[in-house]
Amino acid sequence: MQLPNPISWTPAGEIRLLDQTLLPSEERYLVLDSVESVAEAIRSLRVRGAPLIGIAAAMGVALAAAAGGAEEVRSAVTVLGATRPTAVNLHWALRRMERRAERAAKAGEALAPALRAEAQAIWDEDRAMCERIGALGAPLIPPDAIVGTICNAGALATGGIGTALAPIYNLHRLGRAPRVVVPETRPLFQGSRLTAWELSRAGVTCTLIADGMIASRLRLGDVACVLVGADRIAANGDVANKIGTYGLALAAKAHGVPFYVLAPTSTIDPAVPDGAAIPIELRAPEEVAEWRGVRVAADGISVWNPAFDVTPAELVTAIVTDRGVVPPGQISRLMD
Amino acid sequence: MQLPNPISWTPAGEIRLLDQTLLPSEERYLVLDSVESVAEAIRSLRVRGAPLIGIAAAMGVALAAAAGGAEEVRSAVTVLGATRPTAVNLHWALRRMERRAERAAKAGEALAPALRAEAQAIWDEDRAMCERIGALGAPLIPPDAIVGTICNAGALATGGIGTALAPIYNLHRLGRAPRVVVPETRPLFQGSRLTAWELSRAGVTCTLIADGMIASRLRLGDVACVLVGADRIAANGDVANKIGTYGLALAAKAHGVPFYVLAPTSTIDPAVPDGAAIPIELRAPEEVAEWRGVRVAADGISVWNPAFDVTPAELVTAIVTDRGVVPPGQISRLMD
Repeated sequence: MQLPNPISWTPAGEIRLLDQTLLPSEERYLVLDSVESVAEAIRSLRVRGAPLIGIAAAMGVALAAAAGGAEEVRSAVTVLGATRPTAVNLHWALRRMERRAERAAKAGEALAPALRAEAQAIWDEDRAMCERIGALGAPLIPPDAIVGTICNAGALATGGIGTALAPIYNLHRLGRAPRVVVPETRPLFQGSRLTAWELSRAGVTCTLIADGMIASRLRLGDVACVLVGADRIAANGDVANKIGTYGLALAAKAHGVPFYVLAPTSTIDPAVPDGAAIPIELRAPEEVAEWRGVRVAADGISVWNPAFDVTPAELVTAIVTDRGVVPPGQISRLMD
Repeated sequence: MQLPNPISWTPAGEIRLLDQTLLPSEERYLVLDSVESVAEAIRSLRVRGAPLIGIAAAMGVALAAAAGGAEEVRSAVTVLGATRPTAVNLHWALRRMERRAERAAKAGEALAPALRAEAQAIWDEDRAMCERIGALGAPLIPPDAIVGTICNAGALATGGIGTALAPIYNLHRLGRAPRVVVPETRPLFQGSRLTAWELSRAGVTCTLIADGMIASRLRLGDVACVLVGADRIAANGDVANKIGTYGLALAAKAHGVPFYVLAPTSTIDPAVPDGAAIPIELRAPEEVAEWRGVRVAADGISVWNPAFDVTPAELVTAIVTDRGVVPPGQISRLMD
């Protein structure tokens, strides 16, 4: 099973990053050697997916520690923390790097190797969490099923085999991969560009649809369940994820299709009581009105472009994290 | 109020057609002088919208009558009838042209002027039907409302001021235009390319969203109602319309937003008992996987691309035709 490797260290200690904005037509890797270049890559979605953003940001802080000292680390945390507002894994990873820096300072440890090791630990733990999510989610998928998803919550979104796609890869390794229905996920086509690309490459059969086809596709009656990722999960089980997820959840409900949210525990934000309190990133109008610099929409038209939506807990059958499978109302059971 | 003129006769009796595939970047008119060129224009969506397809097909039959005789008319009806399967107005208009040709033959009338006049009558009646739909639909829209729609059911889809957009233009002429939320309508962007273009041009304020944003947009709570067109309405009130309409209807239901279907009476097909019996056109995978010849999706991926979906009658608040406003279960009242 051939999965992409969206991030890694170069031998010189820089970050080697797959530029996801160019997929699937071009597989180009960037070498990032500064915090600003990492922040730009996150803002521009060259690297995306809540868990992978957390890993990239942690690696960015490690870069800062290698080039400077405690002051540079603090500045890196500020710059990277301001890149994207919705995914909580970013802030979770940055807080963890900050605390490690404080512990290193107190203990008189060298900062750079401590933070490089911490970023590596965040990545390694994410890889292990993906594996556990895959193992816990696999039994939810019936044999020979067709599974729905949205956006990309696969290898390109994490440090491992993904979150929503992890159970699919888990079954694929056992020779029992379900087929996957992939909505293209406008405006940025993460479904057609990323998910279809990584699934096909791994040998998983998938069918692409436009987002407006989701309800019709579920009505056919052969989609066994829907698996999606998450960018932030509120304390009450409301889920922020890629725009379009809420409509998918409504369609799943209308057709009695189980709707599962798969994410590492770090995606749960106990400080946020419900979905209404999750900040939703509004992005540039051009993402909807243009495609690769070519105008699609009428000139001068105003655009509403939220990058995420909130699916209320009552539409979620269960939340699957590395710590277990629970109904959305019981996610507090998964927290420390 | 400046509305586009998507079809007309040239002084020489050919058809002058706005090529809608090039909008909004280019406003180019084609001159069609053969049945085959009209059929190609319908198949390629240079002309689209159920009522306007009916008008274009009728004009195509008139072209055949001008160039030939009864045999050419029969052949034109066959060729044009095979262009698109879902919209019933096409078949309704062709049957009407066929019957007019038969009456002309029996009465010994000249075929060409009779069929030209019949095509013109179909067009004139459509324009009048649009006006009535506008007048009947306008009271359904509260003052200062925001209205949702999908695809294009406006001047570019009809011989007049549209169907779904007719009440909006009706109110606009009175200085009370509602604002409109326009989903882009993938895969062919009829929302961003056509609806946003014609509404902006007419001076109606609109906001473009991606299709996956519909449910989130309705959740905000300020969309007063949804107005959509139809390509065929079954005897039980089930509605075939542009793919994405069903998901929009589910979202409207979830948020208590009234969902109105606006169409000329010719869109009702009493021969079809329910939505399951409406043929749904499946179109080429490239419409989803490419944009203007540039590949968007991963190579080799399979695509499911239905051009229409069926919204069950129970999600429809009312159907507005030129003959009245009725609950979907009572459309038989509107038939002769």
